[in-house]
Amino acid sequence: MQRPLFITLEGGEGAGKTSHIEALRADFESAGRTVLVVREPGGTAIGEAIRTILLSPEHGAMVPRAELLLYEAARAQLVDEVIKPALADGAVVLCDRFFDSTSAYQGAGRGLESAFIDKLNLFATADLVPDATIVLDLPVDVGLTRARTTGAPDRLEAASHGFHEQVRTAFCALAEAHPARVRMVDATQPLDVTYVAVRTALEEVLGEVF
Amino acid sequence: MQRPLFITLEGGEGAGKTSHIEALRADFESAGRTVLVVREPGGTAIGEAIRTILLSPEHGAMVPRAELLLYEAARAQLVDEVIKPALADGAVVLCDRFFDSTSAYQGAGRGLESAFIDKLNLFATADLVPDATIVLDLPVDVGLTRARTTGAPDRLEAASHGFHEQVRTAFCALAEAHPARVRMVDATQPLDVTYVAVRTALEEVLGEVF
Repeated sequence: MQRPLFITLEGGEGAGKTSHIEALRADFESAGRTVLVVREPGGTAIGEAIRTILLSPEHGAMVPRAELLLYEAARAQLVDEVIKPALADGAVVLCDRFFDSTSAYQGAGRGLESAFIDKLNLFATADLVPDATIVLDLPVDVGLTRARTTGAPDRLEAASHGFHEQVRTAFCALAEAHPARVRMVDATQPLDVTYVAVRTALEEVLGEVF
Repeated sequence: MQRPLFITLEGGEGAGKTSHIEALRADFESAGRTVLVVREPGGTAIGEAIRTILLSPEHGAMVPRAELLLYEAARAQLVDEVIKPALADGAVVLCDRFFDSTSAYQGAGRGLESAFIDKLNLFATADLVPDATIVLDLPVDVGLTRARTTGAPDRLEAASHGFHEQVRTAFCALAEAHPARVRMVDATQPLDVTYVAVRTALEEVLGEVF
């Protein structure tokens, strides 16, 4: 069996997570690996139902504690139903957002207590932690402009500029707190240039994997 | 302003919570009180959407941690959006299930760690605790037979007999652990006899309220 790899991509709106995940999928598959791509919240029938609740602009009155708990519920289901079985089969799992987003969006962004969120994150994942996490970093204005070229903003995109600034600062702090797992990558450059940096950062954390 | 009262009714399937809540509503209204009846999970637009996910028989693969977190999400929204404002206006709030159900169903029933559930309960409610809790107690077989006279069983009703036995034992333990708040009432007797016991138990905890 090949070495299982659990890799998460994080970052603000418009940072390019989807494009880099697709590029990573192609490179891992070229290297003969089985790849599974999942996204948070979602990735299971239950998780997609939760995602619908979370992202609906009609639910603007959602309190921050409920939002946090919904993300964690979707995560618990995704971990047990999808991620752990794939890792047990030796796959590469690429996850579009994971618990670092919860720390950044619900902790720093919404002001909920971070020590409790850390416990809740590990409860939801039953102690599963990514092998490597890439944070695609770019200034808030650049990211929001990119994200809004496609359709109306969803509930999270519509939050204030200050909220997104706090999220960005929180991702930087996570990279500093977990240097053996989390790497920041400058996402302001063209996609192909940024992608080289993503691969380099991954190999710094994981060793040779492609 | 009148004394706000937050009263929760608990118990297994078919114990008669709905009937006793309606009787309490009538008696409190006769005493000149404003009464609000809510149910868990639900009671808000977000909570009702969560309830749909929880009770759907299609979601039989839901993992216990996800189930727990969904109940807590619905509860956080209900507390902030509905219960706290009503109590601030001096109302009587009657709640069909609250966090003791989480301790009993997800803790004892599903085997999740009870110390963590206690913390999660208080996180979800932002430390709001009921003034009085009535547990309507009856043997599992009696309750399930009553519940199943109306339509197909939902996902919780369809759980095993052993699961419901563990739930009943957990409710008894909660009453012993919190004697100043939680009272058990024998729900095997006719509704009008049981209701007298419900009122008596409430007045033992709260003093004269009707």
